Amino acid sequence: MSRVTLSHGDGGAFSAQLVQNLFLRYLWNPYLEHLSDATILPTPNRALAVTTDSFVVQPVFFPGGDIGKLSVCGTINDLTAGGARPMYLTAAFILEEGFLLSQLEQIVASMAQTAKECDVAVVAGDTKVVPRGQADGIYINTTGIGQVYRGLKLSPREIQPGDAIIVSGTLGDHGIAVLSEREGLAFETQVKSDCAPLSSLLSAVEDLFPAVRWLRDPTRGGAAASLNELAQAAGADIILQERHIPIRPQVKAASDMLGLDPLTLANEGKMLFVVQKDSAADLLNMLQAHPLGADAVIIGTVASGSGEVLMKTEAGGTRLVEMPAGIPVPRIC
Amino acid sequence: MSRVTLSHGDGGAFSAQLVQNLFLRYLWNPYLEHLSDATILPTPNRALAVTTDSFVVQPVFFPGGDIGKLSVCGTINDLTAGGARPMYLTAAFILEEGFLLSQLEQIVASMAQTAKECDVAVVAGDTKVVPRGQADGIYINTTGIGQVYRGLKLSPREIQPGDAIIVSGTLGDHGIAVLSEREGLAFETQVKSDCAPLSSLLSAVEDLFPAVRWLRDPTRGGAAASLNELAQAAGADIILQERHIPIRPQVKAASDMLGLDPLTLANEGKMLFVVQKDSAADLLNMLQAHPLGADAVIIGTVASGSGEVLMKTEAGGTRLVEMPAGIPVPRIC
Repeated sequence: MSRVTLSHGDGGAFSAQLVQNLFLRYLWNPYLEHLSDATILPTPNRALAVTTDSFVVQPVFFPGGDIGKLSVCGTINDLTAGGARPMYLTAAFILEEGFLLSQLEQIVASMAQTAKECDVAVVAGDTKVVPRGQADGIYINTTGIGQVYRGLKLSPREIQPGDAIIVSGTLGDHGIAVLSEREGLAFETQVKSDCAPLSSLLSAVEDLFPAVRWLRDPTRGGAAASLNELAQAAGADIILQERHIPIRPQVKAASDMLGLDPLTLANEGKMLFVVQKDSAADLLNMLQAHPLGADAVIIGTVASGSGEVLMKTEAGGTRLVEMPAGIPVPRIC
Repeated sequence: MSRVTLSHGDGGAFSAQLVQNLFLRYLWNPYLEHLSDATILPTPNRALAVTTDSFVVQPVFFPGGDIGKLSVCGTINDLTAGGARPMYLTAAFILEEGFLLSQLEQIVASMAQTAKECDVAVVAGDTKVVPRGQADGIYINTTGIGQVYRGLKLSPREIQPGDAIIVSGTLGDHGIAVLSEREGLAFETQVKSDCAPLSSLLSAVEDLFPAVRWLRDPTRGGAAASLNELAQAAGADIILQERHIPIRPQVKAASDMLGLDPLTLANEGKMLFVVQKDSAADLLNMLQAHPLGADAVIIGTVASGSGEVLMKTEAGGTRLVEMPAGIPVPRIC
């Protein structure tokens, strides 16, 4: 049997085979030993962070990653942005009848590898199969549980005029990688998704935690959405310097061609930091010393204001960076 | 706007509106105040139980419930079966473009009501929208976190020959309710799904916890799958008494007509208990005193053996109750 059948999702013998021969082969850990209705985990000694995300990216495989890697990175990055060390994930699959088992295996292997890199255990799972035509191959939900770091106090209310805004690397890579793969666009240089788990990037800057006021991984809606949410919640303006915003030339070219603003494109391996002015240089150095922060840069500052995101353009003007509304880029994550 | 559009899922302004005007209107609690990437929860003082499930039931509304109620009950019941008191849920929606917002509202209201009844907070959420034809209306993932009860030691290894097997009520109601609604079958009396959250049923029998050895809510694959898993894991036989198995006459009639065994049909508001022989009568009394356990009954016993489920038939014979394999009843939960 090389394809997913409805009986893989009915809770009977075929479901059990799929769990044993595929999911547990890659994702086994002691917590899964009993395969009970609920998995029992040790009593945590810190506050918990919890986040959930479904992944419906299309295509399922794209330059730089696949839906499996993405589903682990996305949830790890949300926990990281919440100021927590990721510990546990759950993974729930909605499979379309007929999906190739070999592709499912690749995806699960990719999840397992990413989770292992981050020392995160997949502690519970679920599989549902829907008849052909009622899904598009595979959808994955991952829910994450982490332990909140000591010494981090993250909130839009913590930010102050003068704080620096740092991004850990180039913007828009994931959006362009997925779009160009989906639309069959060929650029001179292939753009790869930045899909990566950022938990180690945050733990690398632990010494500076008291100076870090806010974190966000700018996924759907891109940096434009994240920074607008911050500005509104903080009741402060954010002033970006266009010339400092890191965008790969091929991402810029593709965005121009497609009529898209890279600031509104999804990223899956980038973190935005708001940091106290005096610690900005130190944070930048620490980030740049980490493989996932090599291109980190200060892109702007917080200013008193009414909650707008403004961009000082290279031409010397100022433009409003709006909250993106109604962007027709479905299934980017 | 009366239908879900792609922009409700793009992380921008329409997504934010959907969250504010619909999800938060019904599901708000203090944990959701910041709407951050991850929700911060207090440090638990017990071991955690975690479970995840996606719900793809078709039709979305059925006699006795809907996908919203089901998605909360299913996860609460898995935590309960894990010996835990449910505390938090996450809710992630995959919506098909064009799905009626009024139906989404009914579903979310139904989730909110069920969660409230159980004193469970929905602490994180996610919405994705896929283009028309890439899902069937709505799929919901709920992941649950609970605190493990003291004094319960649940494991197939705990069960002993002579232990009693109790079911909290009639079997097969959910399966028949959904199938008959889906297929447009009309029976003399409408069969309602038993969809109900069982957390209060377990807390009602707390005094007997040391005598309770195993719990399971028999959903997909029904009691036949749950009891076969138990028998295999325990390396013991389970002997059922057909005349004691509670099945509503209309469920029996519908099952006969459809050629289905009620033991293999899904339940969504029933719990199987294995309890020490001497405490079986007390457990039965306590269950029967609870509205969700009024029809509780002892249906069998554990016997030494090689891991089979056997049924003493009303005709006086013995038949093997097999692990269901390849049942073509997709999207029952």
